[in-house]
Amino acid sequence: MPKIAFVNGSYRNIHKASIEIEDRGFQFADGVYEVIALTNDVLIDLDFHLDRLNRSLTEINIKWPMSRESVMAICAEVIRRNRLTQGSLYIQITRGVTARDFSYPNGIKPSLVIYGRRSRNNQASSKAQGIKVISTRDIRWGRCDIKSISLLASVLAKTQANNKIAQEAWLLNEDGFVTEGASSNAWIVPRPNVIQTHPVNSSILSGITRLRTIKLAQEQSIKVIERPFSINEAKKAKEAFLTSSTLFVQPIVNIDGSQIGDGEIGSTTKTLIKSYLDFMD
Amino acid sequence: MPKIAFVNGSYRNIHKASIEIEDRGFQFADGVYEVIALTNDVLIDLDFHLDRLNRSLTEINIKWPMSRESVMAICAEVIRRNRLTQGSLYIQITRGVTARDFSYPNGIKPSLVIYGRRSRNNQASSKAQGIKVISTRDIRWGRCDIKSISLLASVLAKTQANNKIAQEAWLLNEDGFVTEGASSNAWIVPRPNVIQTHPVNSSILSGITRLRTIKLAQEQSIKVIERPFSINEAKKAKEAFLTSSTLFVQPIVNIDGSQIGDGEIGSTTKTLIKSYLDFMD
Repeated sequence: MPKIAFVNGSYRNIHKASIEIEDRGFQFADGVYEVIALTNDVLIDLDFHLDRLNRSLTEINIKWPMSRESVMAICAEVIRRNRLTQGSLYIQITRGVTARDFSYPNGIKPSLVIYGRRSRNNQASSKAQGIKVISTRDIRWGRCDIKSISLLASVLAKTQANNKIAQEAWLLNEDGFVTEGASSNAWIVPRPNVIQTHPVNSSILSGITRLRTIKLAQEQSIKVIERPFSINEAKKAKEAFLTSSTLFVQPIVNIDGSQIGDGEIGSTTKTLIKSYLDFMD
Repeated sequence: MPKIAFVNGSYRNIHKASIEIEDRGFQFADGVYEVIALTNDVLIDLDFHLDRLNRSLTEINIKWPMSRESVMAICAEVIRRNRLTQGSLYIQITRGVTARDFSYPNGIKPSLVIYGRRSRNNQASSKAQGIKVISTRDIRWGRCDIKSISLLASVLAKTQANNKIAQEAWLLNEDGFVTEGASSNAWIVPRPNVIQTHPVNSSILSGITRLRTIKLAQEQSIKVIERPFSINEAKKAKEAFLTSSTLFVQPIVNIDGSQIGDGEIGSTTKTLIKSYLDFMD
């Protein structure tokens, strides 16, 4: 079955769904996006994702191409047409098409792309082995709180990780503190039942799974510290993990070649993985 | 006459020339570009632009989609089909189409877009009034030496300038020094026959017109200082100007509301404008 995507008003085969070359998303990275997990026919934390999309759009002065309710209806139709039950949905909104110019005129029609991806049962992550991460310098722009498609720095970091047989790159600011991962939030367990992550500011994206994990941790009486940690603190931590909308709570057992804890998935991380899977159920 | 663009192997009406939604240029800003002035049928400093394109591609590990000679032949064909004599040519190369993933596989075919824009005789700039610029914080990523399409920060800065009835935004680093403009290099004339601009490093793009201006200045016995200047130094300068491939040498008479010099185009800037126009002739 061909994959069907919604692009600017019509449902098309994904490889025939076209964007004009003067779409500002293609020429200027002038757009924003969301990725939302689909688990057992449910879009996880959809409202939070659309709230964040709204914030990203507002921050760079792009209007919704249609109402939020219409976007939700298209999400449902994309899921239906592709018979998706497990996987993720991708939403991208760009400023639209204009004659190329750095500054943009008002009143142009934004472009909207929505399509999905099927994946194995997401809950497979509950059985996952811990992954490896590397650290690299955070060279991204100053507004990482906006979920923009201006992602080249993250692409280079993630590819650097993959080339070193790691699954994620943790990004270090000038002082050696971890901001976040190339496409996830970064966490350590400095001592049992305490989890620590970078606070929300313009250096990181306010992850939806990060927020959900904070709520779930509090329900489990796990203490949450929102304070930056250095890469050296991370290497000495009892446990480490990342959160993302498609990887959920993903344990990390190795950072820059250093084994974390005893190299097994730790108990605090296990508690959070279980809490997150229970939440999705 | 419709505008004709070259896109991945064929010449199409610009609004029908299509990019797939999973082109990494559209989803990750994973690509690079060049803009080259066309003056009296000649692409100005074409070799330097293709050298820089080669460097940008190399830095982010994208291969040429075809030989440099073939790209030059397509440039000529785009000019011919559009009957362009004055204007500019735009070349964009992205990593190509893959299923969405931050890290990229090797061996995918890069996308290539080439099209042109007609404009009034470029030499109109010789009669130009000086323009206004504003300053704003430089929030771009750490590899501004790569001419990537990851341009959202520059889009926001340029739009901020336009909203203040200015034509360019000068970008300030943490210490209040001007790195460059949103889409141009920034210059001041601290005293007659001396010009100053930010040195080439990862904070700025090595402008082709910047390089050409340095050569032309030296021929005119104008001293060139490659050292950062603060926004306060700029406001107190005798003259100011910018250089870009499509604006050439453009005088600036106002920075953040402060008049520069006597508000007229100064003699050193005039000398460089004339030198650049003579060079293009």
